[in-house]
Amino acid sequence: LREFELIRWISEHAPAGAGLQTGIGDDCAVLRTPGGEVLVVTTDMLVEGTHFQSGDRPEEIGYKAMAVSISDVAAMGCRSLHAFLAVALPAGFAPSLATGLIDGALAAARRFGVTLAGGDTTASPAGITICSTLVGIPPAGGAPILRSGARSGEVVAVTGRLGGSLAGRHLRFVPRQDEALELVRRFAVGAMIDLSDGLSSDVRHLADRSGVRVRLRREWIPISEEARSADPLASALNDGEDFELLFTVSPEAGLALSREGLCGTPVTVVGEVLPGPAGVSICDDHGRESELAAGGYEHFAR
Amino acid sequence: LREFELIRWISEHAPAGAGLQTGIGDDCAVLRTPGGEVLVVTTDMLVEGTHFQSGDRPEEIGYKAMAVSISDVAAMGCRSLHAFLAVALPAGFAPSLATGLIDGALAAARRFGVTLAGGDTTASPAGITICSTLVGIPPAGGAPILRSGARSGEVVAVTGRLGGSLAGRHLRFVPRQDEALELVRRFAVGAMIDLSDGLSSDVRHLADRSGVRVRLRREWIPISEEARSADPLASALNDGEDFELLFTVSPEAGLALSREGLCGTPVTVVGEVLPGPAGVSICDDHGRESELAAGGYEHFAR
Repeated sequence: LREFELIRWISEHAPAGAGLQTGIGDDCAVLRTPGGEVLVVTTDMLVEGTHFQSGDRPEEIGYKAMAVSISDVAAMGCRSLHAFLAVALPAGFAPSLATGLIDGALAAARRFGVTLAGGDTTASPAGITICSTLVGIPPAGGAPILRSGARSGEVVAVTGRLGGSLAGRHLRFVPRQDEALELVRRFAVGAMIDLSDGLSSDVRHLADRSGVRVRLRREWIPISEEARSADPLASALNDGEDFELLFTVSPEAGLALSREGLCGTPVTVVGEVLPGPAGVSICDDHGRESELAAGGYEHFAR
Repeated sequence: LREFELIRWISEHAPAGAGLQTGIGDDCAVLRTPGGEVLVVTTDMLVEGTHFQSGDRPEEIGYKAMAVSISDVAAMGCRSLHAFLAVALPAGFAPSLATGLIDGALAAARRFGVTLAGGDTTASPAGITICSTLVGIPPAGGAPILRSGARSGEVVAVTGRLGGSLAGRHLRFVPRQDEALELVRRFAVGAMIDLSDGLSSDVRHLADRSGVRVRLRREWIPISEEARSADPLASALNDGEDFELLFTVSPEAGLALSREGLCGTPVTVVGEVLPGPAGVSICDDHGRESELAAGGYEHFAR
């Protein structure tokens, strides 16, 4: 059973209901309150040995737990408001582990004006598990940006530089909420997703949900310093945990963003949106084009 | 570090913020949207070896994960609308484990008209961990019932019968949403909490938050069949995981509820609310009264 198969099985079996505007399959669910207000909600579970290691500092682990969910809300073009943090701690944990985790989470919360509204604490049989849930709202007058809104003729752009995150950036990244809010304030954004599994996987999620073909340009992909080792391009495509934004806008907006960036963060056009059927290819400056396999992180891979 | 000390430390360090009406320390957080609507949100993390055992059926584990959070929303006098489920599964898990967990959760969701709006799946280093987050709303025109609203002169009542839940009921209980909604529709409820840690601990949470003394009557406490073993009263006071409602109402309402029950569920008056300072005592039919120690479940006890 692969992770995407399980998620598909779940979404096919999950009951619909009034007030659920967008359910399983985007960075956040989109809820509509009885009074017609729109909220987005995301939940992320971080597990020792997978998302962080036992030697990582508690403050960094707690920070990451909060930041990954703020990043999901940002990927909807929304602002995070309220956080819920459930933590399982191993027997005999040091008090500084618990307070360090919370201190790290609160640092991220304060940076983005998020309250810690609730949570849960329990004992764990092995290692630390943290589950963060964030509630956010779209900007006044705006609507959440989905993965499904990409249209042929748009370009695909990313914030920041990709690859090599596991060298340490995955514990310290700044979620792109400021950039996302500035982006949706200034431009019409077709679709957006945050890069958690890796560009090659996440661009496929966007293409699949939008029913479009995305053609990436090999030479345009911005590669981080940490990724310039054995195979920098593979690293940028597949490492995952970049927590940058991937989005589609008009070519004119893409050009402006490439020049100006967003809130001091560079923006790079990495490809274009073509008509469906859904798919992802990558081409080089000589026009050689090949299908791009999804090589990003797969939680249940063995 | 005890669990209540950690929670107190967190709530003292958590930043306040606009829109957070009630934060850490009740069954749910109470959020106010920019447009003025009220939502309640709760999150619960269930861990193998603590909240369920490796031999328990996946369907029952998934059911429980959903049901405990619906119970928290019910304890606010609210209705659950949307659920988020994050699941960590051990390496090499059988597909039937994953689908069984979800099937069980969906059974609880369907029973109460809850959507499965989102979630997360990841690999676990050991055992199953499930984190459920529920979003609910108060009845039209109503407000969430807090732990802090008990007033001297009220009586304390519980639904159902207490103790012995770990014999199996903790995996199959029906959260008291129907009863809670009927209760708040018909009566003015002072304070409410669900019995998860155990009556002796949970009544103390209510007394502490309300700043009142609660005097329980030993002979009135309704004891379940499963608890009638070595020390039935201790079992009813301390076993925990009953997931019944504990609430305060006027003596007249308590009398009516004792006679009629709620939706076919028995209701029993178990004590009275006296002026503070906060505390809990238990007395018998001969008027002998003693302080009641909190003996319920403590996650970090060693």
